[in-house]
Amino acid sequence: MEKITQQQVQAVLTPRPTNSYKGSFGRILAVGGNENFGGAITMAAKAAVYSGAGLVTVATSKDNLPALHAVVPEAMYINYFDKVALSAAVAQATVTIVGPGLGTSSRSHEILQIVLTNFDPTHYLIVDGSALTLLAQDPKLQALLPAQHVIFTPHPGEWQRLTGLTVTEQDDVSNRQAQQRFQATVVLKKYHTTIYHADGTTSQLTVGGPAMATGGMGDTLTGIIAAFLGQFSQVPLTAVVNAAVYTHSALADQLALTRHVVVPSVLIDHLPTFIHQLQTP
Amino acid sequence: MEKITQQQVQAVLTPRPTNSYKGSFGRILAVGGNENFGGAITMAAKAAVYSGAGLVTVATSKDNLPALHAVVPEAMYINYFDKVALSAAVAQATVTIVGPGLGTSSRSHEILQIVLTNFDPTHYLIVDGSALTLLAQDPKLQALLPAQHVIFTPHPGEWQRLTGLTVTEQDDVSNRQAQQRFQATVVLKKYHTTIYHADGTTSQLTVGGPAMATGGMGDTLTGIIAAFLGQFSQVPLTAVVNAAVYTHSALADQLALTRHVVVPSVLIDHLPTFIHQLQTP
Amino acid sequence: MEKITQQQVQAVLTPRPTNSYKGSFGRILAVGGNENFGGAITMAAKAAVYSGAGLVTVATSKDNLPALHAVVPEAMYINYFDKVALSAAVAQATVTIVGPGLGTSSRSHEILQIVLTNFDPTHYLIVDGSALTLLAQDPKLQALLPAQHVIFTPHPGEWQRLTGLTVTEQDDVSNRQAQQRFQATVVLKKYHTTIYHADGTTSQLTVGGPAMATGGMGDTLTGIIAAFLGQFSQVPLTAVVNAAVYTHSALADQLALTRHVVVPSVLIDHLPTFIHQLQTP
Amino acid sequence: MEKITQQQVQAVLTPRPTNSYKGSFGRILAVGGNENFGGAITMAAKAAVYSGAGLVTVATSKDNLPALHAVVPEAMYINYFDKVALSAAVAQATVTIVGPGLGTSSRSHEILQIVLTNFDPTHYLIVDGSALTLLAQDPKLQALLPAQHVIFTPHPGEWQRLTGLTVTEQDDVSNRQAQQRFQATVVLKKYHTTIYHADGTTSQLTVGGPAMATGGMGDTLTGIIAAFLGQFSQVPLTAVVNAAVYTHSALADQLALTRHVVVPSVLIDHLPTFIHQLQTP
Repeated sequence: MEKITQQQVQAVLTPRPTNSYKGSFGRILAVGGNENFGGAITMAAKAAVYSGAGLVTVATSKDNLPALHAVVPEAMYINYFDKVALSAAVAQATVTIVGPGLGTSSRSHEILQIVLTNFDPTHYLIVDGSALTLLAQDPKLQALLPAQHVIFTPHPGEWQRLTGLTVTEQDDVSNRQAQQRFQATVVLKKYHTTIYHADGTTSQLTVGGPAMATGGMGDTLTGIIAAFLGQFSQVPLTAVVNAAVYTHSALADQLALTRHVVVPSVLIDHLPTFIHQLQTP
Repeated sequence: MEKITQQQVQAVLTPRPTNSYKGSFGRILAVGGNENFGGAITMAAKAAVYSGAGLVTVATSKDNLPALHAVVPEAMYINYFDKVALSAAVAQATVTIVGPGLGTSSRSHEILQIVLTNFDPTHYLIVDGSALTLLAQDPKLQALLPAQHVIFTPHPGEWQRLTGLTVTEQDDVSNRQAQQRFQATVVLKKYHTTIYHADGTTSQLTVGGPAMATGGMGDTLTGIIAAFLGQFSQVPLTAVVNAAVYTHSALADQLALTRHVVVPSVLIDHLPTFIHQLQTP
Repeated sequence: MEKITQQQVQAVLTPRPTNSYKGSFGRILAVGGNENFGGAITMAAKAAVYSGAGLVTVATSKDNLPALHAVVPEAMYINYFDKVALSAAVAQATVTIVGPGLGTSSRSHEILQIVLTNFDPTHYLIVDGSALTLLAQDPKLQALLPAQHVIFTPHPGEWQRLTGLTVTEQDDVSNRQAQQRFQATVVLKKYHTTIYHADGTTSQLTVGGPAMATGGMGDTLTGIIAAFLGQFSQVPLTAVVNAAVYTHSALADQLALTRHVVVPSVLIDHLPTFIHQLQTP
Repeated sequence: MEKITQQQVQAVLTPRPTNSYKGSFGRILAVGGNENFGGAITMAAKAAVYSGAGLVTVATSKDNLPALHAVVPEAMYINYFDKVALSAAVAQATVTIVGPGLGTSSRSHEILQIVLTNFDPTHYLIVDGSALTLLAQDPKLQALLPAQHVIFTPHPGEWQRLTGLTVTEQDDVSNRQAQQRFQATVVLKKYHTTIYHADGTTSQLTVGGPAMATGGMGDTLTGIIAAFLGQFSQVPLTAVVNAAVYTHSALADQLALTRHVVVPSVLIDHLPTFIHQLQTP
């Protein structure tokens, strides 16, 4: 298992081409945020914007519109109950996040199904939070997963639901076997997060710590992964995912030098300068 | 009566275990915020998040949802008129705050009754603001109070309503007698706040000052107490409450060195770095 | 005409008594903000909180509730169309602001009438913006004005509506004559604002500049005046109003040293530290 | 083709006259922001306020009201479906922005028509985003354009829709010919933005870079142009537009020295100090 190094990450975070425009840096769609968990999708979207994504749209409950635009006016909005609009947005997005705060109701299930049905398999799909639970509950949804370009970002409990592996059973051999059932990249979030790549390689994080253990940190990670996939599309998927996961935790470590807890909203505000620091060592 | 010292507080604020996750640091539920006082419960929730709580949910009027997610997207939401959801949330929370901005209407009364009825007595309950007034008005509600793990955070006016003691009558002997009726920890908020612990000991604050005398400061304190109870559960309750009350006022004193008034929202933003300062003297 | 000096202002801004609580620093009510001008009353309320007011309530259109709590969760709210609640709030407030963003519709007129009818003449009333225009239009409203403790904060256009004096006619003699009709303190906002006090004295500002010429600056001033009246009630009204007007413009001057325009929201954030600077020369 | 220099810009950004008031610095109206793109018009309005505009009103969908006042309480609001209010606001505004987030539905079309029909041709009109697409689709709308004082701010895709010129065909000769059909100033946003002035001269930017390639940057530019037109009305239109475009990109360059991406909301917060820096070299 390879440890992710700062040098590897720096090789991914290439400077932006001079002659570029917002369309050069990805069209991100973030689907989630029911009435109860609206902050989750807002943090994912803000993290994507602050990581350099070109265009970010949030598909969520209308209840979350005022806070979304208050927190990140750069993001666009669609009502995720509008099937036509959601289907079109999924088809157009170069990277889709589904799951943060989505919930597990029948309506959440239906939304996930629309996402999976309309997804363009040449694009990227990040499956997080409630969407992982919905997948665990319904093999028919699993059958709709694209054969490539899928990233799962479970914490150990979600990974257990999806694979049946209890937390103590989640060793590298078992995790790898489980990963192969889905053909997805699996970012297993824990102390020293491990990434089971779809190409069979495994990467491990040596940064990150307990100051990150707070609600919203995982939502924030999905936004960073999405933004990096939208921007660094010439780099192999494995390297881009590693770079995003590393950036998230390395920034948290830097902030934790002076903070008891790293609040996700605070971490997000520091992304533009931290990514620049990584780029210019 | 013991004075609370910084050394005692530092002994409580232990570093987070390396191998921890958000579930390690408590599941906080904050119940309050009617149409008129929605900011109160938002400040309580934000203070809990910025003090290191793992997961924070707010049960409030739907009127307050947009501002809640705009101010603290890390918090989750339930409509406090949804009895099923509220009952389930109370049963699951390791720490419940009830009262900030709750109001004293019959609907507020009903919400407090649901909280008290569904509360798991192995968990912690912080009773503040309107909830104290509702208790004062209705002995039947008082009878529902759990026998342990309850913290009251009255100001002298609320304490008078609850005990019949006028402000001038609120001396240590009388306060202690009144405390024994409720078996609760009583944090009597005033200049040099006194804490009448349930174990019979009494603690007094020597920090804090008039720059804290502004609406919302008490709501903020409930969030800090809740977050500390969620995180430092291996420490005796008396020490955790003392640490939270001290942190709140000592940070205010630090900010008051350069400010005429310490606005609660400003204090909250400084919590992560101040708690870190206390941890690393 | 006396120039307001920093020394005079410092004499007003006495330190807070050690043994004080939020009720010691005034109960402010800010009435205004229709559907179109909701930001005005939010800025007035935030300025009051950041100037040290004890308790601040906003009576406004329900449309403005989400933004109010997002910007200043410390403020409480009532729907200004709820006549019972508005009447009670006016009767209780030690300082009432009426006018920022109130509008001039028949409903605005009715709200102003409720304020004037329920006002306790031992308290303070600040009349700003639309409320001045409504007064100008209706002598019956003028007849409801209390005989003392009233502060008008017109800009020259509003003063013209109220008095008939064109801007060029607004010299000290004419302004003084007009002031005597209302028995109110008149803060005539302009380059080097002049204050015609109800006791017959006149004060002039020598601070302030064109970086303040932006929408919302006047709303902000009302909040500072209200907060100072709530806190420094042992000082004569003339000195308190002078101190508030001076603080507002002197802070703007300090910020304008490095800014092309002083945005009201930015000025408000600096109030707690600036007032402290004035207190500790 | 002339390169825009910092010296030229400094000549435009004259200090504010001492004896000025908010009415001296323009009455800006920003029309746009449907249910899906509400952040766009909020950023335009905030940029105008932070660039020194006197009074800013936003005409948008009511869905966007809470976030608008949360982000920029200095801005006023009208519902853009209220034809009477919109017509009156257009007639009064000294500078109108139309287009950011407006959308291209039949209702968006109707709103643009109301703007063009009620526009006072002695004032300034900035046409951006969706409004350019609507113009491209309907020659009848084009016929309503005023003969002078119009600024188009297309990106190359919008310019293609308006002119039929593919991006590779957009050379200076073709762009100039196309500009002459509209008699408008054309700010063609791209790497080293080129401005085809209505007086036949052409200016080019030598500042700006790829850190600006993110959603919302164009909306922000419209606010700066509007604010400068409102403030520097004694300067020729060509110089004012050049100064606004330069300020926007030069500030982005400064922020990009330490940031991977320049988020529009972050850029806006720096406008007051950056404009001051340009004024005081």
